[in-house]
Amino acid sequence: MIRAGIIGATGYAGNELVRLLMQHPEVSITNMTAHSYVGKQFDEVYENYRQLNEMVLGEMDLDYLSEACDVLFLALPHGTASKVITKEVLEKTKVIDFGADFRLQDAAEYEAWYGVEHHGKSLLPQAVYGLCEVNREKIKGARLIANPGCYTTCSILTLRPLVAEGLIDLHTIVVDAKSGVTGAGRGLALPNMFDECNETVKAYKLASHRHTPEIEEQLSYAAGEKITLTFTPHLIPMNRGILATCYATLKQKVSYEDVKAVYEKYYGKEYFIRLTKKGVFPETRWVKGSNFLDIGFTIDERTNRIIAIGAIDNLGKGAAGQAVQNMNLLFGLPEETGLSCPPIFPA
Amino acid sequence: MIRAGIIGATGYAGNELVRLLMQHPEVSITNMTAHSYVGKQFDEVYENYRQLNEMVLGEMDLDYLSEACDVLFLALPHGTASKVITKEVLEKTKVIDFGADFRLQDAAEYEAWYGVEHHGKSLLPQAVYGLCEVNREKIKGARLIANPGCYTTCSILTLRPLVAEGLIDLHTIVVDAKSGVTGAGRGLALPNMFDECNETVKAYKLASHRHTPEIEEQLSYAAGEKITLTFTPHLIPMNRGILATCYATLKQKVSYEDVKAVYEKYYGKEYFIRLTKKGVFPETRWVKGSNFLDIGFTIDERTNRIIAIGAIDNLGKGAAGQAVQNMNLLFGLPEETGLSCPPIFPA
Amino acid sequence: MIRAGIIGATGYAGNELVRLLMQHPEVSITNMTAHSYVGKQFDEVYENYRQLNEMVLGEMDLDYLSEACDVLFLALPHGTASKVITKEVLEKTKVIDFGADFRLQDAAEYEAWYGVEHHGKSLLPQAVYGLCEVNREKIKGARLIANPGCYTTCSILTLRPLVAEGLIDLHTIVVDAKSGVTGAGRGLALPNMFDECNETVKAYKLASHRHTPEIEEQLSYAAGEKITLTFTPHLIPMNRGILATCYATLKQKVSYEDVKAVYEKYYGKEYFIRLTKKGVFPETRWVKGSNFLDIGFTIDERTNRIIAIGAIDNLGKGAAGQAVQNMNLLFGLPEETGLSCPPIFPA
Amino acid sequence: MIRAGIIGATGYAGNELVRLLMQHPEVSITNMTAHSYVGKQFDEVYENYRQLNEMVLGEMDLDYLSEACDVLFLALPHGTASKVITKEVLEKTKVIDFGADFRLQDAAEYEAWYGVEHHGKSLLPQAVYGLCEVNREKIKGARLIANPGCYTTCSILTLRPLVAEGLIDLHTIVVDAKSGVTGAGRGLALPNMFDECNETVKAYKLASHRHTPEIEEQLSYAAGEKITLTFTPHLIPMNRGILATCYATLKQKVSYEDVKAVYEKYYGKEYFIRLTKKGVFPETRWVKGSNFLDIGFTIDERTNRIIAIGAIDNLGKGAAGQAVQNMNLLFGLPEETGLSCPPIFPA
Repeated sequence: MIRAGIIGATGYAGNELVRLLMQHPEVSITNMTAHSYVGKQFDEVYENYRQLNEMVLGEMDLDYLSEACDVLFLALPHGTASKVITKEVLEKTKVIDFGADFRLQDAAEYEAWYGVEHHGKSLLPQAVYGLCEVNREKIKGARLIANPGCYTTCSILTLRPLVAEGLIDLHTIVVDAKSGVTGAGRGLALPNMFDECNETVKAYKLASHRHTPEIEEQLSYAAGEKITLTFTPHLIPMNRGILATCYATLKQKVSYEDVKAVYEKYYGKEYFIRLTKKGVFPETRWVKGSNFLDIGFTIDERTNRIIAIGAIDNLGKGAAGQAVQNMNLLFGLPEETGLSCPPIFPA
Repeated sequence: MIRAGIIGATGYAGNELVRLLMQHPEVSITNMTAHSYVGKQFDEVYENYRQLNEMVLGEMDLDYLSEACDVLFLALPHGTASKVITKEVLEKTKVIDFGADFRLQDAAEYEAWYGVEHHGKSLLPQAVYGLCEVNREKIKGARLIANPGCYTTCSILTLRPLVAEGLIDLHTIVVDAKSGVTGAGRGLALPNMFDECNETVKAYKLASHRHTPEIEEQLSYAAGEKITLTFTPHLIPMNRGILATCYATLKQKVSYEDVKAVYEKYYGKEYFIRLTKKGVFPETRWVKGSNFLDIGFTIDERTNRIIAIGAIDNLGKGAAGQAVQNMNLLFGLPEETGLSCPPIFPA
Repeated sequence: MIRAGIIGATGYAGNELVRLLMQHPEVSITNMTAHSYVGKQFDEVYENYRQLNEMVLGEMDLDYLSEACDVLFLALPHGTASKVITKEVLEKTKVIDFGADFRLQDAAEYEAWYGVEHHGKSLLPQAVYGLCEVNREKIKGARLIANPGCYTTCSILTLRPLVAEGLIDLHTIVVDAKSGVTGAGRGLALPNMFDECNETVKAYKLASHRHTPEIEEQLSYAAGEKITLTFTPHLIPMNRGILATCYATLKQKVSYEDVKAVYEKYYGKEYFIRLTKKGVFPETRWVKGSNFLDIGFTIDERTNRIIAIGAIDNLGKGAAGQAVQNMNLLFGLPEETGLSCPPIFPA
Repeated sequence: MIRAGIIGATGYAGNELVRLLMQHPEVSITNMTAHSYVGKQFDEVYENYRQLNEMVLGEMDLDYLSEACDVLFLALPHGTASKVITKEVLEKTKVIDFGADFRLQDAAEYEAWYGVEHHGKSLLPQAVYGLCEVNREKIKGARLIANPGCYTTCSILTLRPLVAEGLIDLHTIVVDAKSGVTGAGRGLALPNMFDECNETVKAYKLASHRHTPEIEEQLSYAAGEKITLTFTPHLIPMNRGILATCYATLKQKVSYEDVKAVYEKYYGKEYFIRLTKKGVFPETRWVKGSNFLDIGFTIDERTNRIIAIGAIDNLGKGAAGQAVQNMNLLFGLPEETGLSCPPIFPA
């Protein structure tokens, strides 16, 4: 059994990770920490685990945890992981980091967008961006995985074949994304109170959301040139789900079938990426509770644009599901292990 | 592998059953039927199954299905199962019926509440009411299981220890229940349109809901005398979940601990029934997607009443989860088989 | 024009009051205070007032405000109003208090349920409980109005005719109430975060909610004897609305028409109380944004119980609407003034 | 008093119109029709009007109604108004049509997008597109008003200053719009059932929504040249509200203040258009129940794009509110008459 430790277990992503790992046939959760709940049982914080997980939450002690665990999942505020993850830690255990600290290879870009100093620059070269369908082989040999952000996973994977195959004008990309409220985390904040975000929709962090450089960096790798794009997140009154509606101008006239073939080339064999049929478009309800990404697209002939849409569960493929998928790769397990439950609907 | 057939697979309960059986290690779904969708793939009706379940939906042919399947799950409108289930069918296969036809042992009561003739009276003696925690032994040897209703499962199990141990005045029972909208089914109806039931709450079928006699019959068995009670269902703007708030006057002064001991006596060893700690009360969010029933209670000293609250997922323990639990009993499997995933939250 | 001051304007009730007063033809809002937002414009706190109400929020200065305003609305935490409202203040202005401090005539009861000392006992004799349909005449001559609570308004008015006419056994009353989340106020609290109360239902403060003694005191006046009852509030995932499902055993056999006549006797001429037709029951959606209370009932012949249901908007008739109705009475205006907009649906 | 007739009163837009007209000081609703509810009282269909509007719904008889009413509001399926509105009708009464039949001046375009023949081509020259802030003077003298669609009102007004002033590259416009479910109407349809659209988000009618040509036609007038753009509507789990996120590439470098000045030039004196402050963006909750359009924008310096966001209540400024505004213009009343209630929040 893989001994897993979860650091920062009481956020929504940590909580979903616990659910997934408890179903995983090859994993045993041996340690859980949560700074704000030290000494409490996990099922007192999340009562869905009543009688199922009564583990007492501890403090983060990386010396100890890196010995006690074969893999550590970190779900910490940005700027923290890069302080506590060291070469020594990585010699003893593998780390899957839910935060942003190791996602951007360019530390200057990180510091510009996040407004804090990066404390783990020396580890950046060995950090692997854990987008499994893109970096599968690198992930297998890594010890430090930067688990991608929710918006970014959905946006990058939806756009990547179009970018990589040169189908679209790289200066015309607009990503209009919609997220459920769990994306904002469990911290107390007036805008996330029920009466403040129920029955309304808004855009936020216009032209300034921190997932932007992450999307741009990864798509730039695919394009072989630097991409700058517009990314606008919106808050939707629902618990889970991200829908990314991506717009770009086609470089030349292509048919639906042409584009479909490109998507099939990239994702035809991917278990967790499901291409919808012509005329069918992704909806977040169809991926809820799962690690799937659904992708559909149409060509707007009148404007020569493609509209490609991706849908994921932000806590699944956008966080905990992908982390488990990364873990499976790290430990040589089939990627679907522990992730085979169909999406739950209606939920 | 147990070969399972699902008749009426495209309702919400059928759909949830498919999800559970697909995770079940000992079951293979061999047949699915749905009158309104014959010839369609299941994943065209429920796109969460995209690439996971592309089985073509057939017509109900019980001669064939009773041969082809080791167990048949029926999710049909009331009045239908009692027409199509025959002695011959039951000789060839086991049946778990989601409908009401075989739940009431008293056919006259059935006909009075449902307003239709009962066509399967001769089978009533062998039908077992599939409330696993109550009828476990009988279920093991049965061939025809009447899977209990959602409101009833929650209400009966919450009240049963109090009734059976003579703690409450049987003339004072009031059950005020709250259900999510999936309880109303997937049929088109104006009151269940989003804008009609979102952002509002209402009571419905006051003093006339068909789950009333089912609750009364089962509690009467527990009491050893005929019980009549008031049951009021309410519609809540959420997808899933039932909360039953049960009121009754205590026959004598008892402490919290006294009552707790009674609940422990009945349910202390039950995997799927979780008693909350003192001062903690069930919420539907903590059981979502699962087969758990959470029960909590308080004593209102000022009025000498007990308030006992039960919470289930109406599609889980209230329908498909309990059906799988029944199937496990029928086939000699551990009851938790395929049902061990923790509840999903937030969802 | 009546010069109105609103103290504590930035809670949900205060905010709704502003909306109502801005439509009121005889009122001018001259002062608004909010301790946490001093110096801010009101439309920065509630952007629905963009360009409509840019008044700057001040500190509470009762000396000044009682001179500057003909009426003061107080929406303050309990225990505060009884400290700041004095005989001197009441000589200069009229006060409508949204809080609990002057609702219970029995200060000992107040101190027992609220756990704080009552600082304004000397004013209790002149405080009038502002349930307009009950205390209309007293209100007209008062200077200090205790505006009733939301649950209490709905529960008392729904049950009062039954109690006053001796139709029900006073020992059997159970009120099972359901409220939208605005009832919990705008203060930051984990249980009221979107993801924590969306898609779930729970009971809370069982046998201990502070509205209980208020309901009991008022119904006791109606009965002419002391009433003790069970009151259970529930939280519903919706913004506004309260539904109170009230249960009681009938003292003797009465027909629907008998009871209907009793309700007509009490409320037939009340503009803001609407009795539903036979077989129709209140839903919170039909009163949203208004000062109406809808009441419907049925007789459960099998158990000899009556089930009476009331529905209000908790911010309307349950708070700000009733406050305006009280103000109209205080100033000799027709009760409906400024309150005639039909409920808004769907909203 | 203006005698108003409402034809098709039982859709969501008709229902909201009734609410607004009942508050309007210069209007008396004299006739209401609804094909599916002939003979029923309006308050039986919409119980918010209990005791407030018990008018009996009639059949549509235009000969009679055009005599009996000073203005007729038509809320009918597309293709119907162009059949029943005639020169004779318009000689006797004024018509405000909620449908699409008279919105596009180009009948061929109408027939292409709507797939039906246009039966009222001869009336097109006198039909005025009722976007009050654009066509105010024409509206005053008209007898046939084509009340704009909900998406279109929001999109056109948000983009118009940018287009008219030549700030943006007209080939780069993308409108990503989000709507509440009332936008889909009250007709029974599986996708609009609560459990099907709650807790999910989807795009629909990609590159094919019928509001597209309407937006294009009006913006083309503003630009003085033909505009083609991409419009993508999304369904959001909320009752009311439209948010239009509009993207376009700036033709040259402009500052926030430059663009702000342009918006001020166009809308600075418009009562119903509210420009947000820098860094503040519209949310649908702030306009709910009102006739306001809130507009905010930012400049994405990195990509040289402008992101302009508009928010309306789809039943308010997107339908009934604008219809009342049009009526006020038609009858020489101040535009705000009957529309001055602030938006309702939280609701």
